[in-house]
Amino acid sequence: MSSDRQAVTVIGLGSMGSALAAAFLDRGHPTTVWNRSAARARPLAERGARLAATPEEAVAASPLTVACVLDYDALYGVLDPAAAALAGRTLVNLSSGSPEQAHEAVAWARSRGAGYLDGAIMTTPPGVGSPEVMFLYSGPHAVFEAHRETLAALGDPLHLGADPGLASLYDAALLGLMWSTLTGWLHGTALVGAEKTPATEFTPIAIRWLGTVNRFLTAYAPQVDAGRYPGDDATVDVQIAAIDHLIHAAEARGLDNALPELLKATMERARATGHGGDSYASVIEVLRNPAGER
Amino acid sequence: MSSDRQAVTVIGLGSMGSALAAAFLDRGHPTTVWNRSAARARPLAERGARLAATPEEAVAASPLTVACVLDYDALYGVLDPAAAALAGRTLVNLSSGSPEQAHEAVAWARSRGAGYLDGAIMTTPPGVGSPEVMFLYSGPHAVFEAHRETLAALGDPLHLGADPGLASLYDAALLGLMWSTLTGWLHGTALVGAEKTPATEFTPIAIRWLGTVNRFLTAYAPQVDAGRYPGDDATVDVQIAAIDHLIHAAEARGLDNALPELLKATMERARATGHGGDSYASVIEVLRNPAGER
Repeated sequence: MSSDRQAVTVIGLGSMGSALAAAFLDRGHPTTVWNRSAARARPLAERGARLAATPEEAVAASPLTVACVLDYDALYGVLDPAAAALAGRTLVNLSSGSPEQAHEAVAWARSRGAGYLDGAIMTTPPGVGSPEVMFLYSGPHAVFEAHRETLAALGDPLHLGADPGLASLYDAALLGLMWSTLTGWLHGTALVGAEKTPATEFTPIAIRWLGTVNRFLTAYAPQVDAGRYPGDDATVDVQIAAIDHLIHAAEARGLDNALPELLKATMERARATGHGGDSYASVIEVLRNPAGER
Repeated sequence: MSSDRQAVTVIGLGSMGSALAAAFLDRGHPTTVWNRSAARARPLAERGARLAATPEEAVAASPLTVACVLDYDALYGVLDPAAAALAGRTLVNLSSGSPEQAHEAVAWARSRGAGYLDGAIMTTPPGVGSPEVMFLYSGPHAVFEAHRETLAALGDPLHLGADPGLASLYDAALLGLMWSTLTGWLHGTALVGAEKTPATEFTPIAIRWLGTVNRFLTAYAPQVDAGRYPGDDATVDVQIAAIDHLIHAAEARGLDNALPELLKATMERARATGHGGDSYASVIEVLRNPAGER
């Protein structure tokens, strides 16, 4: 264990917080931990973590405290009594919350003399510590740079910008993409599964196909930024024609079709607002303008 | 141009059919083409394609005919008069349709003495000819093997099985995954865009995140096949708690929330049927059992 690594404190030892502390220990950071129920700290103590008796003692032990608790109420509940220790130190909050809550936390930290970064963990606990996993941070660039090397113990640290709300905004956006993708994959898996194709046979092909879909995203992103959606390759009209094959095939196999029906209705709203000959990227115009509010 | 390549015929010269014919020509296959409006054939003729005067002449020119027309009605309309020429030859149908239509086409081809493969093109026309692009085929294995090398001119040919409906079933399933992913990405793009993040800045991170999501698909596929969904990493309950952050953040920014609301309702149905402590893969049980039909 190299003692020239920065000391770090981890507050909150649920499965994610424990994974964070373990990753710091693995990379040789002197690591202090605190959890409301001390039992969760024992396995980490066996791996070399120092157990603090109070949040204040924990925060005082390191220039950097990483918090991973249930929500912002829990964060303030734990750290308000430790406020004196926070002065001159940095708090990185990896608890989940909204962009608005991140803004409030900046003010809370500032009034206590603490630097603050908001963060989001783009993996499940077993992925923590892997260099290809993204950890998203937002807040002052200088605070991020001061701790980048320490944070790299957890995964690949990406700084999204000075606006502290960006990490949780990206987190929400990326989780939304995940749920959409997972649900689309499960619907497709159920469809081919109705004809006895195992999920393990369909999934490698689905993953390969997502590589092609990634190329569509890359082509469509500049269209979104330009607000122009040339439909050279595949128009909304063409997609609307094609989705009926999916809906009929799924209906014939007794599947729930709420997702493809919603996607079709969304495409039809794009067509109704003049985007039938445009690319699928034009659907963003519909998403920016809720139904019935045009 | 190497004359030991198998001769091939392409019927239907829309933008996709033209791309198919061009890919065959690029790989040195003697290529005969036919289109209802001959004007579409001229650019291909300039690249060395032979123009047939009738579908029958086109089919008679090659052991293998690839058809890419609007739909099955168009297919039969064009090929019924050419039926005599089909005997002893192979038809690969890359027109879009349903699994049921593929089954009918097998019977139609058989009664005319023709071999038949159904196929699906997993790219837009500019991707045709690229070896990493998937072309999905279903139908008799021997027919596929006899023409695999020729079909490799178009992309990577994958044989899904003898059931001729599999290619269009996979096609529908994969397109559904694409629409879900595209719409989830657009929703996320609109969300971060509301805070002035360009799509071109969000998208590389979204694509990197989809790499992580792919690892979830790989982990969940065997759960689907086993019908057991251990929620070690992230349970449906945890996802339901997290999706409220997305819904609130998107609502606050005036976005259409129909997609996340549907995803949340779907998760809640999974929880209501006892999957709250299971992984997201358990949502497939909901998709197999339409709402109100339990």
